[in-house]
Formats: sequence, C-alpha cells, structure tokens
Amino acid sequence: MSDLLEEALAYAREHRDAFVQELCEYLTIPSVSAQPEHERDVKMAALWVVEHLRQRGLSAELLTTEGAPLVYAEWKSSHTHAPTVLIYGHYDVQPAEPLELWHTPPFEPSLRGGYIVARGADDNKGQHFAHIKALECLLCTTGALPINVKVLLEGEEEIGSTHLSRFVREHPELLKCDCVLISDSAMRSLQQPTIIYGLRGLLDLDITVRALEHDVHSGHYGGNVQNPIMALAQLLAEAKDREGRVLIPGFYDGVRALDAAERAQLARCAWGEAEIKKETGALQAFGEPEFTPVERRGIRPTFEVNGMWGGYTGPGIKTIIPAEAHAKVTCRLVPYQEPAHVGAAIRRFFEQRCPPGVTLEMRIGPGSPPTLLPLDNHAMRAAVQAATATFGAEPLFELEGGSIPVVHEFAHTLQKPVVLMGFGLPEDNIHAPNERFALASFEKGIEASVRFMIQLSATS
Amino acid sequence: MSDLLEEALAYAREHRDAFVQELCEYLTIPSVSAQPEHERDVKMAALWVVEHLRQRGLSAELLTTEGAPLVYAEWKSSHTHAPTVLIYGHYDVQPAEPLELWHTPPFEPSLRGGYIVARGADDNKGQHFAHIKALECLLCTTGALPINVKVLLEGEEEIGSTHLSRFVREHPELLKCDCVLISDSAMRSLQQPTIIYGLRGLLDLDITVRALEHDVHSGHYGGNVQNPIMALAQLLAEAKDREGRVLIPGFYDGVRALDAAERAQLARCAWGEAEIKKETGALQAFGEPEFTPVERRGIRPTFEVNGMWGGYTGPGIKTIIPAEAHAKVTCRLVPYQEPAHVGAAIRRFFEQRCPPGVTLEMRIGPGSPPTLLPLDNHAMRAAVQAATATFGAEPLFELEGGSIPVVHEFAHTLQKPVVLMGFGLPEDNIHAPNERFALASFEKGIEASVRFMIQLSATS
Repeated sequence: MSDLLEEALAYAREHRDAFVQELCEYLTIPSVSAQPEHERDVKMAALWVVEHLRQRGLSAELLTTEGAPLVYAEWKSSHTHAPTVLIYGHYDVQPAEPLELWHTPPFEPSLRGGYIVARGADDNKGQHFAHIKALECLLCTTGALPINVKVLLEGEEEIGSTHLSRFVREHPELLKCDCVLISDSAMRSLQQPTIIYGLRGLLDLDITVRALEHDVHSGHYGGNVQNPIMALAQLLAEAKDREGRVLIPGFYDGVRALDAAERAQLARCAWGEAEIKKETGALQAFGEPEFTPVERRGIRPTFEVNGMWGGYTGPGIKTIIPAEAHAKVTCRLVPYQEPAHVGAAIRRFFEQRCPPGVTLEMRIGPGSPPTLLPLDNHAMRAAVQAATATFGAEPLFELEGGSIPVVHEFAHTLQKPVVLMGFGLPEDNIHAPNERFALASFEKGIEASVRFMIQLSATS
Repeated sequence: MSDLLEEALAYAREHRDAFVQELCEYLTIPSVSAQPEHERDVKMAALWVVEHLRQRGLSAELLTTEGAPLVYAEWKSSHTHAPTVLIYGHYDVQPAEPLELWHTPPFEPSLRGGYIVARGADDNKGQHFAHIKALECLLCTTGALPINVKVLLEGEEEIGSTHLSRFVREHPELLKCDCVLISDSAMRSLQQPTIIYGLRGLLDLDITVRALEHDVHSGHYGGNVQNPIMALAQLLAEAKDREGRVLIPGFYDGVRALDAAERAQLARCAWGEAEIKKETGALQAFGEPEFTPVERRGIRPTFEVNGMWGGYTGPGIKTIIPAEAHAKVTCRLVPYQEPAHVGAAIRRFFEQRCPPGVTLEMRIGPGSPPTLLPLDNHAMRAAVQAATATFGAEPLFELEGGSIPVVHEFAHTLQKPVVLMGFGLPEDNIHAPNERFALASFEKGIEASVRFMIQLSATS
C-alpha cells in the first residue's frame, strides 16, 4: 500500500465519528425539490455543501440556473498531465411522505443498528458525501490531490434534472474531464460491489379528468353524470393487461429483443422473486411473463401509476360524485425508446379512449433518455481495482432499473467514460419511509473513492 | 284564514331576522358525523338544539345511543283526540372538504344574494329548523299547539343512520304517531312544491388493495411488482361499461321493469339534460341509454366511486410504486333490491377478479333499503293543502335519487304515513362546497309547516 493511501485511510478511521456527524447535519436540511414549500431548504442545502467544500480546501461556488442552483467545486493538481475526474451527485431528496410510516422524523437523522436513518441518507447525500470526505482525507494528509477534481452537485435530480442537461450542453469546457464518477446506485451487498453499465430513462406525466364544475350529491345525480374517478380508472386500466404488459400501441417501439448471449450474461445476476419479496414485502413477483426479473428491470420499459386521487378520501362516508380525478404516472424507458415518441403514443392512446362526459388534460414532461455505458476504458478499470481492493470481491456489472437523467447527457456531451459505482444497499428504502445508509457503506465508500483517485493517477 | 294561522304567520314575519340569526348560530357548529375529530362538535349540536327546543316550551332531552345522541322533544295537546305528528330531521352534516372551493368558510355562515351559505344550511339544519320555528310561531302566539308533536333529530344520517333504525324498532311506543313529517329533500323551484314518494336505498363499501409492505422505488422494482393503483383501477373499471351500465352479475336482481303507465307518469317531471348540465356543470348527461334522466334517478340503482386514493398526490414527481390503494363506493338501491344481496354480489365480483399480486379487503356496510310511500292518506292531503296554499301551486310527486335511511324504518315499523315535503332547491349545492339555503325557502318552509299542522288538526 502506498504511503498516500495509508495516510488517507488512517485519517478516515480517525475522523469516522466526525464524518458521520457532518453527514447528519447535512441530512437535517429538508431539501425536497418536488415540493414548493421546500424551495428555501433546497437552496440552504446547496449553501451548506458549497461552504463545506470551501472549508476543505476546494474552490467552490453556486452556479445559478432557472431552478435550483448547482454546486460547482474544483481542485487543480500541480501536475500538468494529471487526469481530471468529474464527481457528480445531487443534494435534493425525495418527498418524505407518508410521514406516519417513519419510525423517527425524516429530517432528524438517527443512528440505529449500524445505519444512519433519514431522508436522503443513501439517495444521495450520503453517497456523494463519501466522495467529499475522500477528498478531505487526501487533502488534509498530503495537502494535495493526486488528480484534478471537479465536483458538480445538482438540486433537481428527483424532479428530472430539469436544468442540468442544458447546463452540461452549454458548458462543455467547464466540465471537461477524463471521466465522470457517480455514486447514486446500490451494490448487491457489502461483500459484492456492483457497477452499473445501463440506466433506464424516465418520462413523467400528469393526467386530470374533469366531469363537473363541483362535487355533487350522488343521490341526486348518480346515474345521470359521468364519474371522473371511474372514467380515469377505465382509462388507466386499458394501459396494461392483467399480466403486466403495456397495451399502448407504439410504447415498445425501438425496444430491442435480447439475444441468447445477453440473456445468459444477465442471468448471472442472482436477483429474482425471493429477493423482490424480501426487499418489498410483495406477495409475489409480478411482470411480463416472457422475461426474468433481471431482464424486466434492465431492458424492459414500464408504465407505473405513482399516485392517484379524487373525491372524498377521509374517514366515513361522503356520498358525492367528485368533479375531477387525477393520476401521476412515470414510465421507465430502455434503449432505444425515445421519450418524445413514447409521450406521443401515450397521449394518442388516452385521447382516443377518453370516455364520454369528461375532459382529459395531460401534462407530459420532456423525459430523459436511457443510457448504455461502455465498459472497456481506464476509468472503469480503476473503479474495478478500487472496488475489489475495498470490498474484497470483483464487482458485478448490472443494468439498473432506475434513472439518473444526467448520465445520458454526460456520456453524450462530454464523450468520456462514466463510472456508476454506488455504495447503497438494496434494503436502504430509498424513495420510501425510513430511508437509511449503512455506516459501513459510508466508510467503505470513502475508502473506495480514495482508492479510485489514487489508482486513476497511477494509471493515467 | 283562521285567526290561529294569521297570528302565527304574523309572528313569523316579525321574527324573520331573529330566526335567521338563530339558524346561523346552529350552523357554526361543525357537526360532521363522518370525521372522528368532530365527535365533540356533533354532540355540541345536539346539546344546542335540545336547549333551543326546551326554551321554546317543548319537553326535550338527549337520548343516548352507541353513536351520536338522539334529540327527542314533545308537546302534548290538551285535546284528547288530537293527532300526533312525528317530525324527523338530522343535526349532523356532510364533511366540508374540499375546503379550498368554499368562497367563505363552511362553518361561518354568511348571507349572500338571498341565501344562507354554510355547510348544513339546507341539509338538514335549515330544513328541520323551519319546523322548530313553526312550532315556536304557534306556541308563542297561542300558548298551545293544535296537535301533538314529537320531534326526533339524529346525528348520524350522513353516515347511514347507524343507530337510529334499531332505536325506531325498539321504541315504537315512544314514537307512536299518526304521521311522520320530514323535510330533507328539494322542491323543483320556489314556485313548484314537490313531495317525494320514493327514495333510493344506500349501500356503502370501502375497498383496499395491498401489494407491498411499503412504497418502493419505481426504478428498482417497476416491472417486477404489482402496482396496487393499477390493480384497483382495473377492478373498478370492470364494474361499469362505457355507457354507465353496472356489469356486476346480480346487481340488478329485483329491479322492476317500468310499464308504459309509470314511464308516462315519470315523464311529467321536466328534468332532463339541460337541468343536469345547469345544476352540475356537466358537459353532458351520462347514464344508461335505455332510460330517461328522471327514470335513472328514480328507479335505477347506481354504483358510484365517491373517492379513490393511493401513492403520491403532492406536487411534482415522486417515482414510487405505492404499497396500497383505496376506494370508497356507495350504491343507490331501488325497489326491490336487497342491500345484503347487492353487497354479496359486489364482494363476489371483485374477489373473483382480484388481480395477481395483491390482497383485496372490502368493508361492506349493512346498507339501507329503498322506500316507496303510499299517497292516499290524510297526512298527504294535509301536506298537499299546506304546500299549495304556501307556494301557490299544487305539489309535484317525484321519486328522489337520494336516500334517507330511516324513512324505510319509519314506514315499516310505525305503519303510518310518511310525508317527505322538502324546502331545498336544486341549486343548493348540498354535499358540495358552498352549500346554501334560500331565505325564501326558510320562510316558506316555516309557513308550510304551520299550515300543515293546522290543517292536520282540522281534518283529523
């Protein structure tokens, strides 16, 4: 082990408690990007982390966008030929609702059973904070980093990275680098590091069905006016068959068929019905019967209702026909679906089937495309080396079902390797109540990040 | 005009403003029976009205039930053969949600454009308060009533009269009377009094569909677990066809076919698509194409979703698959459907069709049967006379689409005529935001009630 590595890891061990305390402070800021009432908190999180980076010796600043600000920081090596890594993460978090299912308040981090429990602990504050701490470990022991580092944190990842994609397209010089490193995914277990080489894209839509000017008495008008909840249920019900196939014509356009080789490669991942049941409490796995769970997650698109509401939702009885009903839907997209094409297919499908007696209103977002990442490059090799040394096992390569909208933009605009090496665990409850991040994930994440940077400097 | 009548109506004119003020005070009590947080307010309304009746000279008391208390009051005539009228009403009100659609707070009554605007103004505080004021007009001018009066007010009408039906069955002596008078319905207009001779019954059910232990990330698990909102939408969508017919086998069992004579009689009521559009803001009337609007309202049963919810319903995007989804449904029942039979048919239908990957939980209430009331009796004749004299036109006889659960019990147990002479108007927004009651309805209601009691004493 090099002196540099040894000193940095010793520093990490010595400051373990302080690091956890700092992360907990970061986690108290309810930076929920989806909820307007948290707009100031989102900005507060940006201010907190920019100050934190500055105090650790990086030059750091807020870059304004039309939405949440970007945090940008950098450290320039004195070595002329040092490679540059761009570390990306996001300081915004998912809404914490339903609050009543949290065992402790979502923005009052607590340490329990080897985990930090809080909204954002894994996704993504804990994960990118591991990189920030890795930079500190190197800087505070040697006074320098072995490579050039750029840090870019955004505050709109959970709402589709609305402004970041454009920023990346418009600032290729600022973001110029040799590789991008992102920790915003999970590993199979603490003994099994995992590198993601494909991500699904995302398309979001809101559907509103209106039947009446106001809620009316279901006795006076029942049988004589359309019920918007029924109309919306009938519309949604037609979008999927009873086995989970999406029935919208054109939805699957571009989705590639799997050949035997790729099926065999995906089959190496031991993730199936047992894991799904354990992780979610599902009665059974459920999905397109022609595909395995790993295939469904990696290379099949989805149409999922994230929320639906209309009428009276309180206790007891309220005998009304509501004026309107609403649904929120997101689709996960796979290569080579095009978000605009899928959006148009969905719009056409629902408009053609709109039941009588209601108006249909759809807001369909621009969406973000899916990504497939190349594996054969120096950054990936450095990540494999760092992960293997840290966790004691060679990483698995997996397709991830989630979306990180900006990954496609990085790969496409910067034309450099992107490494997705995440430190989360499947049981971390991200996007759900009682989100958590293992202390071991945090510590190992710091170590893997330190190792990656040293390895990158050695092999470039 | 008799002296008695003249004096009573003069008293009503003189005390018009005071009567409105008293009603407004009654309306400030948010006696929402469906919502547990209003349990004390429900009791408060009962206490308020029992005290009010006592101060007007009736003997009045609260009768406890396992739910909200009953208000019972009586006045005994010194004439041995004076007939007895039982006046029924309910002091509980519908939930006020959605609050944001009210122009003024629902429990801060306001006088605007000739209306009292508040939750419960029409349904039912304003209507039964008109009878209380009629009693006052007679008692305060002559010191006596021309008939025996019993007043019975309940606090659970809006949640299915849970405890009243049993009370009626168990206390036939207490409630012994010659007729029942109820004002809990609407007239076609202030120039067109309306007597209801049939009511639909009610059956309420809650449906819960559970798929997961907790909400999960739609990227990690999308395509691999059932979505409970989609499952519930698919279930509900199958219950009705696209033209409004209920598809549940057995649902229509017992519903009688109409003969030409009854169709002709119902066709006399001029209520059709134009009125429905005006009253509700609907784009079009919608319902079983084989029937007219009046037929659909009077003699056809319904299956209406009153509310549905699941997942994330806030602003922005939340990429989850929710753990569960919920719906509230009420059915309006017509002669000769049986609530238990319909409930069993619904349970069987949904259980047989329950999609894979979810558990289905249904709470189905006991329901209340529909009612058809005889028209040829002394009480009905007194009502026709009183309505004609008050409003200047002979009353229409109509079938009402709504339900007053206890009417069936009164007719069945007491075996006496029930008169449903309501003073509401179609545009009163009952069960909806900005519920209101015309000051003219209130005044005319008092007059009609005074006339009814005098007429009843004269013809008995």
